[in-house]
Order: sequence, then C-alpha cells, then structure tokens
Amino acid sequence: MDVAGIGNAIVDVIAHADESFLVAEGFAKGAMTLIDAARADALYGRMGSSIESSGGSAGNTMAGIASLGGTGAYIGKVRDDGLGRIFRHDITAIGVQFVTPPASEGPGTARCLILVTPDGQRTMGTYLGACVELGPEDIEPATVAAAKITYLEGYLFDPPRAKEAFRKAAAIAHAAGRLVALSLSDPFCVGRHRDEFRELVAGEIDILFANEAEISSLYETEDFDQAAAAVQRHVKIAALTRSAAGSVILADGTVHRIAAAPVARVVDTTGAGDLYASGVLFGLTRGLALPTCGAIGSLCAAEIISHVGARPEAALDQLVASAGLV
Amino acid sequence: MDVAGIGNAIVDVIAHADESFLVAEGFAKGAMTLIDAARADALYGRMGSSIESSGGSAGNTMAGIASLGGTGAYIGKVRDDGLGRIFRHDITAIGVQFVTPPASEGPGTARCLILVTPDGQRTMGTYLGACVELGPEDIEPATVAAAKITYLEGYLFDPPRAKEAFRKAAAIAHAAGRLVALSLSDPFCVGRHRDEFRELVAGEIDILFANEAEISSLYETEDFDQAAAAVQRHVKIAALTRSAAGSVILADGTVHRIAAAPVARVVDTTGAGDLYASGVLFGLTRGLALPTCGAIGSLCAAEIISHVGARPEAALDQLVASAGLV
Repeated sequence: MDVAGIGNAIVDVIAHADESFLVAEGFAKGAMTLIDAARADALYGRMGSSIESSGGSAGNTMAGIASLGGTGAYIGKVRDDGLGRIFRHDITAIGVQFVTPPASEGPGTARCLILVTPDGQRTMGTYLGACVELGPEDIEPATVAAAKITYLEGYLFDPPRAKEAFRKAAAIAHAAGRLVALSLSDPFCVGRHRDEFRELVAGEIDILFANEAEISSLYETEDFDQAAAAVQRHVKIAALTRSAAGSVILADGTVHRIAAAPVARVVDTTGAGDLYASGVLFGLTRGLALPTCGAIGSLCAAEIISHVGARPEAALDQLVASAGLV
Repeated sequence: MDVAGIGNAIVDVIAHADESFLVAEGFAKGAMTLIDAARADALYGRMGSSIESSGGSAGNTMAGIASLGGTGAYIGKVRDDGLGRIFRHDITAIGVQFVTPPASEGPGTARCLILVTPDGQRTMGTYLGACVELGPEDIEPATVAAAKITYLEGYLFDPPRAKEAFRKAAAIAHAAGRLVALSLSDPFCVGRHRDEFRELVAGEIDILFANEAEISSLYETEDFDQAAAAVQRHVKIAALTRSAAGSVILADGTVHRIAAAPVARVVDTTGAGDLYASGVLFGLTRGLALPTCGAIGSLCAAEIISHVGARPEAALDQLVASAGLV
C-alpha cells in the first residue's frame, strides 16, 4: 500500500461569505477555529446557502492519492449518522480503504463550516463531533505497517485521545521500516501544540508539510529562510508551500524551488495544501525525483482551487499524464 | 411578492460518471428516472464520490430569482431530517420564504442522484421520499394570491397528490388576477402525463417553459416549428430553450430569438433550464421587454452550467448589472 492517512473525518459545509461576515463572527481569516455544537448550529443558521462535501485534511489528501492512482487506507472517526454515511461513501467510492468503525453513540459526525470570501480564501469553523472518539484502539497495526508512508494531520492534536493514536501509528510505521509524514495543518493549531509539534518533528517525523505561516509559527520566527534552515536539521524532507509563489522542497541540504501551476481563476482555496501533499506523497511512493514530486503537488493544488470543495473533480492521474509528469 | 414556486423539494447528490455507467444502470442519458428507496441506496453505493447541494427544479428557480434580487416563496415538502434541514437552510439563506411545514413521519427528504458525464450532461435518478406527502392542504392561499406569478414544475405530476396542490394553486392565482407559469421539466415526465399537461397548457397556463425535447413530446411531433406553432395557440408566453442554440420566446404572434450566453467550459448542465426560468420570470416581474427577459435567462443559465450544482455560486444581480441588462 502507498499511504495510510490518519485524520479528523469531517464533512465540509461550504458557503460564500463577505469579509464583514468573518469579522462579525469573530473568525481569523484563513484559519481554522474550533467551535462547539451550539456555535456550529448558530453559525449555520446565519451563513449562506451551502454545499456539502466530504473533507478533513488527511481525507482530502487520501482522495487525491487515490485519484492519482495510488493505493491507500484512511483512519478517522465518524458517527453512524447521515453525514457519517456520506463521508464513508465518498472516501471508499474513490478507492480508499476506510477501516475505522463508526461510533454508535456520542456526538455526531464532525462538520467544518467553511466560509469562502470573494478572493477565494477559506476560513473554517470546525465542530469536531465524533472525532473526539478516535483513540489508539482505532490504529490497526497491519494497515499502518503495510503502508510505505503513514501520513498524519496536525489537527489530530486537537481532539483529546487522537494524539495517542498518532504516536502509536508513528511507532508502528517506524518499527516496520516505513516513513512517517506530518502536515502542520494550521498556524493556530501549531500555536496550541507548539512544544509537542517541535518534539515530534525533531524525533518522529521523516517528511514535513507546512505553509509559511505554519513553519513560522513552529519556530516562532518571521523569517522564512530561518524557519527553513531550522526544519532541515530535523526531517529528511520538508515541503514548504508559499501559495501563489509555489513551494520549496528541502532535502539532503538541497533546496528545490517548485513553481505553482497556473489557475484561470482561484475559486476556493480549501484543500490546496491537502492536495499538494497528495501529489508529493504519490511521487515519493513512485520513487520520482523531488522536483517532479513537487510539480505533481502543484498540479493537484491547482485543480482543487479552481472549483468549490476540497475533493478532486477531475481525474488527477489523467491531469498528471497530460502534463507529462509520469 | 414576485414569484411563488411550487415543486418537489429535493437534495441533489452529484457525482461524475462515465457513459458506460449510465448504460450499466439502465438510465436514459439527460433524463430524470424515478427510483425507489432501495434502488437509490444501491445506486448511491455504486456511484462515485459526490457533493450534496439543495436542488429541486422550482427550488433552483426560486434561488435564482432571489439571487437576482426578486422576492419569493417556495412550497414543497421535506421530512424533518438532516437533508430536510439542509434544504430549508439553503433556500431560506438566499432569501426565499419556505412556508411548508416538514413531514414528521413517513419517508425521508427526497434525493436526486445526479450523474454528470464528461460532456457536462446530467442524468438523474430521483427518489421522491417526502415529496409524496405534498397535497392541497400545503397551498397557503395568501401566499399564492400575493405573488405576481405562481410557478409550477411539471415534476409535480409524479407524486400522487401534488397535482391537486398544483391545480388549487393555479385556481387561487387566477382568481387573484395573477399569472400561472409551468415548466414541462422532462420529456419522459411529459410522456407520463401528456393528456393532463395538454389540458393544463390549453386551459390554465399563461407562461410555459420547455426545451425542444419536452415541447416535442407534448405535441408528439419531431418538428420544433410545428410544436412552437401549437403552443402559441394556448399560452400568452412560451419560452422554449434549445441548449447551446439559445432560446425562443413566443408571444403575441412574435418570435424573439435569444442567444445563449458564452461559457468558457460546460461543467455540469444541472439546473440550466431552472435558472433560465429564473431570469425570464424575474424580467417579467420587472416589466422588462421579452428579449431582455430572455437575455437575463441566458446569463443565469450560463452561470449555473459553469460549475457543479444547480444553485447559483455568483451573485446573479451583479452579473446582470455588469452585463447592462437592468
């Protein structure tokens, strides 16, 4: 198997909104804010007409890997409710094994209320719901040991017991001689768990994904080059994204600069980082050169930001083949 | 109030599919097939990763009218379940009054499983669910009497008691000196109810919307001009759509030819006819000339086919203002 992804299993509820709505709701633009069930209900009542789409950072990444032709499994917790059935349908329909049993009691399947501003930026309010039930008992050793790369989203540090699941999965992967990858997810998430993230990155992570704000938050520096220098001391491969400026992949003392792929119009940036990770991880499992891995990541990110929603609409394997990257 | 819309209240479940999948499932491409709960579950299990979006033909039309700046009310039946809450949220969030109480027992909220082929065409399997509960008791006379135009979708003839609601609404509207509009919805739907539709069009409809296949089915002729001549004898205004060839509006013995608005890429044709009707109906309520009404319809249809889903993503009032149509 190529990749096992572990994350918060979430259904996205996506609406367009003005900047003033974000201000009125007290959201930091571009970030993910955790909200409780009551605030989720109230916000849903005030936000505009929406569409629903399966999401979750690692879930999006795994859907991207499957669309690229990779094989994968997903570990995450839904409830046995309507949204949980939607999440399960969507991730299995694209060819990802979803091995975690649903919760039969407790809070409902998680929802992420996503507000897309006219500039295409997304701002998120997440009600974690059933995700708080994920624990180490949900990590199936055989699944993790079978995957070339185990991919973990930083958001897993928000629900209480998921980080135990996270550490268990990392230990199993390394014991099986596999690689462990982490996405830092969100600068505020890094801020909430900075010490643990630094310890993890220094000790257990082989491949790190982060954007500029996240890597800056991790090392508490405004200087991107300084942050990039710091991370190189700790991980084999660091893939750092810079929005329209593309990305850099740092490995073995070499800096690979990757251009962003062109997009006619940025409609909704939700999932850009998740799908960039799909491309890089897929390339790594195929043994491709790092600049090619990065180019595939850029292409996948470009597809996802050209439409509403964080799951691919186009067949990514065909896009990548058309671009001559595989 | 500008328009009262009455229709089947449906949540769309939209996935991409190949032509071969339509053949394997036995669907007529481009048409709407009624399916029962068991077939809906089985089809959902076989279809690809999907997004969920409020739909329903008249619901889409009312959302378009609201986005254009018109005022409206919607009459249709959902269950008090998760999909029903999504439908209610979306139509009220865009500014349409949704006056029908949900069913508290019986089948769940209706779903339309929509398969979008690579050419952008949509093929639909509809499980009517709670829509079968709509009856004349759901027609609030004051709402219908207050609307300049009462708009009815032909699909209402499929659930058993909705046609009684339909006839009651038409009678109230006419008693109040208002106009009654009908969309023929689908050529197979016309085939299922041809005699009743002909009688309705001849006796109770002021404004008729149909595409080529539907008007041909109504008058059982392959000749569009012959069908157009027939319909002119019965209604004040007939707006007949011809996909990429635009539309014609027939009124008072005059034929207005309306061009289709350009679209960079046809992504998903779901809702094209519904949103064309939004534009024409909005123009009529504003007393605009028929060619302008048609041009607004073309612009709204172009917006909806440029993305997945049948509810507008852009603010239609701004699109129409930018195009200099109001």
